[in-house]
Amino acid sequence: MATKKVIYDTDPGVDDAMALLFLLAAPDVELVGVTTVLGNHRIDVTTRNALFLRDTFGFEAPVARGAGRPLVLEEKDPPVWVHGENGLGDILLPETIRSEEHPLPAHRFIIETVRKHPHEISIVAVGRMTNLALALREDPEIASLVKEIVIMGGAFGYRGHSGNVTPVAEANIIGDPHAADEMFAASWPIVVVGLDVTQEAIMSTPYLEALRDRGGHMGRFIWDVSRYYERFYRSSTKFDGIPVHDSSAVAYLLDPTLFTTRGGPIRVVTEGIAIGQTIQAPNTRRFPPNNAWEGRPDHKICIDGDADRFLELYFDTIVAAAAGA
Amino acid sequence: MATKKVIYDTDPGVDDAMALLFLLAAPDVELVGVTTVLGNHRIDVTTRNALFLRDTFGFEAPVARGAGRPLVLEEKDPPVWVHGENGLGDILLPETIRSEEHPLPAHRFIIETVRKHPHEISIVAVGRMTNLALALREDPEIASLVKEIVIMGGAFGYRGHSGNVTPVAEANIIGDPHAADEMFAASWPIVVVGLDVTQEAIMSTPYLEALRDRGGHMGRFIWDVSRYYERFYRSSTKFDGIPVHDSSAVAYLLDPTLFTTRGGPIRVVTEGIAIGQTIQAPNTRRFPPNNAWEGRPDHKICIDGDADRFLELYFDTIVAAAAGA
Repeated sequence: MATKKVIYDTDPGVDDAMALLFLLAAPDVELVGVTTVLGNHRIDVTTRNALFLRDTFGFEAPVARGAGRPLVLEEKDPPVWVHGENGLGDILLPETIRSEEHPLPAHRFIIETVRKHPHEISIVAVGRMTNLALALREDPEIASLVKEIVIMGGAFGYRGHSGNVTPVAEANIIGDPHAADEMFAASWPIVVVGLDVTQEAIMSTPYLEALRDRGGHMGRFIWDVSRYYERFYRSSTKFDGIPVHDSSAVAYLLDPTLFTTRGGPIRVVTEGIAIGQTIQAPNTRRFPPNNAWEGRPDHKICIDGDADRFLELYFDTIVAAAAGA
Repeated sequence: MATKKVIYDTDPGVDDAMALLFLLAAPDVELVGVTTVLGNHRIDVTTRNALFLRDTFGFEAPVARGAGRPLVLEEKDPPVWVHGENGLGDILLPETIRSEEHPLPAHRFIIETVRKHPHEISIVAVGRMTNLALALREDPEIASLVKEIVIMGGAFGYRGHSGNVTPVAEANIIGDPHAADEMFAASWPIVVVGLDVTQEAIMSTPYLEALRDRGGHMGRFIWDVSRYYERFYRSSTKFDGIPVHDSSAVAYLLDPTLFTTRGGPIRVVTEGIAIGQTIQAPNTRRFPPNNAWEGRPDHKICIDGDADRFLELYFDTIVAAAAGA
């Protein structure tokens, strides 16, 4: 299978870490860079966590520090009730981090890497879209040079799934709605993996126990890092386990046939009670002219996914990597 | 079966007229008033049409003229491409209307009627919510005196249904979003029948032909009034026939078991690209505090409906009334 060169734009974050392991374990992925952004925690914490993950799992790709605040909004306190005080479910972290940050800021690293490998770079973005918006502002031409962008973000109401911050807003998008709206305005091929599908793929406790027992070092880490996160989801939602949002975006990258998509331009609400909502105008229906979606490029959103096959793919990928290691 | 006293708040409108016949034909409904509002056409046209329907079908209930403009927004041109230049699919109308308007404006008629029959009045509101908001402003106590309110309006994204004016906004709500938001703030029992279910119940051409042939005077009228409307839907959407939105609200009134509902407070977006969107915070999920839904009363939205049984109920009701007439 052809190897995919991937930049992983992330705010680790428990499910970010689990998705990073999925990328590292996948045989057909070449991780060429990790870029960090604020979100699940402040930028110093998410960057430290990315460097810690590099130390722990020994990948070569550099870690470039990204945006520490949203384009327009005031920054709020990080959601430590979801990801823990240290952003990684309060597992014990070493006092010293050996890996060092890449000298470029994340958005310049993205521009440079895309220009170095035109039409070859896939970007998997699972935090706020701030780094991508900054890259676009500085070098709009990269839109035509990126191979594909797969984001975890947004919610479109399918099967009654609501947002996770407000009834219509998902955390990555409401965290920087202006950045997301700028990103969707550009003509690069974006696939949106939102809560509509990520909340359908739930890792149960027995599933995570099996990963712990059969997934080697990665499996044990996944178990440890997800204990705090699982307690949060079990106490605050009706999920019988944990949704691992960011890994669904990686799954789309690895096997798009796991998902059903719908095309159409996407806007993000930047004010009022619906702030942070992603709204697609489906290209199967006409709307009155002079609307806010007109003239914008089509992007794809995932409206359905095969949760069982996704969970199998994640499990098998981690276990196979452990066996090969 | 106990008779339901009903005020029908409406902007006829093709599907409004079809729903009015459904109410007139239903054996367990006592229509106590028709209140008009702008929407499918200007207020003088919707009121004229309501009076014409009273002449044609000989019902006793008075017609009270309601709001001619939204609470806050500027009025726009009426959607004559959907309902025709005369608001009733451009069927031939008589030069003279015999029925006269009730002396009270709609919102005062609503207040007076509710106070006269406390806990007995069902309001079926299938136009903009302006009359209901005005009634509430003048006499907030009616909220505790109304038996139930069933509205046709809104869209919640179920099964991928979008709005019909924008990707998230339905016509009745975007036509006066401030009025709708005020209405949802009140503690009266509201059930929302939105596009999520009304767009699932499609009357096909053969269905309408059968109504024409077996539904007597009403059946022939339904056929005539829906020709223009069917051409619009067939040219602009993928429906194989016509959605008859307002009749789904009447169906809920007659038989709530046709629908599945979800509870939770509802807000309406009053600005930005999502203006006119109805957003419910499902009461099955917790959201961070200090949100825009907090402290608001729960209302029900329909998230699923039995389209076949609805179509059967409409057909049988019209045909039985024709046979009994």
